[in-house]
Amino acid sequence: MAVTRAVESIAWTGDGLTVLDQRRVPDATEYLRLRTLDEVVEAIATLAVRGANVLGTAGAFGFVLGVRAGLDPDEAASRVVAARPTAVNLQVAVELAREAQLRGEDPLDVALGLLEEDRAACAAIGELGRRELAGADRLLTHCNTGALATTGRGTALGIVHAKAAAGEPVRVYATETRPLRQGARLTVWELQQAGIPVTLLIDAAAAAALTGGLIDAVVVGADRIAANGDTANKIGTLALAIAAHHAGVPFYVAATWNAVDPATPDGAAIPIEQRDASEVIGIGAGAPAADTAVWNPAFDVTPAALITGIVTERGVLHPPFGPAIAGLAR
Amino acid sequence: MAVTRAVESIAWTGDGLTVLDQRRVPDATEYLRLRTLDEVVEAIATLAVRGANVLGTAGAFGFVLGVRAGLDPDEAASRVVAARPTAVNLQVAVELAREAQLRGEDPLDVALGLLEEDRAACAAIGELGRRELAGADRLLTHCNTGALATTGRGTALGIVHAKAAAGEPVRVYATETRPLRQGARLTVWELQQAGIPVTLLIDAAAAAALTGGLIDAVVVGADRIAANGDTANKIGTLALAIAAHHAGVPFYVAATWNAVDPATPDGAAIPIEQRDASEVIGIGAGAPAADTAVWNPAFDVTPAALITGIVTERGVLHPPFGPAIAGLAR
Repeated sequence: MAVTRAVESIAWTGDGLTVLDQRRVPDATEYLRLRTLDEVVEAIATLAVRGANVLGTAGAFGFVLGVRAGLDPDEAASRVVAARPTAVNLQVAVELAREAQLRGEDPLDVALGLLEEDRAACAAIGELGRRELAGADRLLTHCNTGALATTGRGTALGIVHAKAAAGEPVRVYATETRPLRQGARLTVWELQQAGIPVTLLIDAAAAAALTGGLIDAVVVGADRIAANGDTANKIGTLALAIAAHHAGVPFYVAATWNAVDPATPDGAAIPIEQRDASEVIGIGAGAPAADTAVWNPAFDVTPAALITGIVTERGVLHPPFGPAIAGLAR
Repeated sequence: MAVTRAVESIAWTGDGLTVLDQRRVPDATEYLRLRTLDEVVEAIATLAVRGANVLGTAGAFGFVLGVRAGLDPDEAASRVVAARPTAVNLQVAVELAREAQLRGEDPLDVALGLLEEDRAACAAIGELGRRELAGADRLLTHCNTGALATTGRGTALGIVHAKAAAGEPVRVYATETRPLRQGARLTVWELQQAGIPVTLLIDAAAAAALTGGLIDAVVVGADRIAANGDTANKIGTLALAIAAHHAGVPFYVAATWNAVDPATPDGAAIPIEQRDASEVIGIGAGAPAADTAVWNPAFDVTPAALITGIVTERGVLHPPFGPAIAGLAR
């Protein structure tokens, strides 16, 4: 059986948090010991800790450290949330911890519960995906959806880790994922750490890999899944889905259930954030003029018709996704 | 009427060459005066001069400068060709100049002829493409196919320049074109110099732009066109063709006729060069390990079935391309 050593992005040690400093990956593997609310806030604000589910969990632990040090709960909550004011997961998690505190319960249970819930969801996704994708050894993925993005082993990469842990052959083709290069920086590093074979390619080369017979299946994560199965994910996902459909290669989405939003009817209702032009323009030699017009959407929407299946911890969904999602929502 | 000021990559001044130093674009606009064979060789070897057609023309002028200075024709030819030993266009152009010299003719006529031939071909492509794409104002393109890559105003970008020169509305969506970023570095700069509106986007965002209704037509260049119309071009072209087909957006190839190779039956017969992993890995902060496995093909092949039309100086080809190409080959 293959030995896999997935990195952990976050762990509670009884008196504080240990987090992987994601600013330093892949140049260095350094863990930060966070023993105070202020240290947690700084780690969040400076992006040492990132990824929606990781962020929420870290924030809840930060709240715990604050009230343990005698801070007023409202003051502790607002200081943690202020570390990244637009992060919804952070607000939700800290509010859960604060409410537990106000009810006289230990907010540590909330934080540990969030951590375990996400870890268990990743494990279930990994196992369900491993069975669904039996025989698909060469997986193309996009962005980073693994142990750095979750408190467990990840969603799309959770399936990869589950295959490796079961001793099944697996090789990942990881897209670079411009503009921020999460594939080249994070996914490649994470898989190399785990001893799982990985090949890097530029985003634009994926269509040739798909039509050329190099790929058995595409597996990506999701930022939001609408009620009809339309899926918003990192920009570039739609191109992979269209090319996979053209090439007859199965296209899977893997996500924890909290990405499913039954209140959003379809992809047209998902707002797409435009990010700063500087991400694409870059700096230094060879960069276009700083005032160059840039179209830089953070996400695109893959229509449900291009998706073979959606792997969640509640089960694997198949078309038609509308009834499948409604059936598992509870 | 719009004023367009296309840059010139190469010009003969009677006693030498003036070339745009493409190593410095877009950081600086510097022209090099080349008065000796050695200066031409250095400019070619160091990539100050690049682009297949530009390279051949520059080499022929270098030969002229060599024999004018009293060098033996064979010696002059071999020194120019050695500047980039794998560049076929360079070899062909220098051989044409050398044969003229051996026949007692002036090799300068060959060099000037090559320059004018390419310039005229670009002008014809621009005009034919402008008429073919009447009403298509928002054009998506890939890589760099303009005044920097040809001795004229370019192939795919030649159509853009022709539209602008005719006072017709035109806006270019230029892909970044990883790994070497010719779109971000060269195409954006060239269009900005010409006063033509250009918007930069990452390669992975093109599918969303196409399905989102932002693009009227895709126009790309070609490295080689097989007898059946299958077209090899910069990696990433296939992804654009598949997405354009999916979105119902016309997909055009624009190329000088010397890219058409009737001896190659179809795309499967076109060898695809794998380039160095370092192009994708990069250097410095955030780069994956230097020994990371990378799949980095230089080109991909777009099947003829995904191509709406091929614009050449001999005419605009439409499907079925086999008979259309055979009809214009002479």
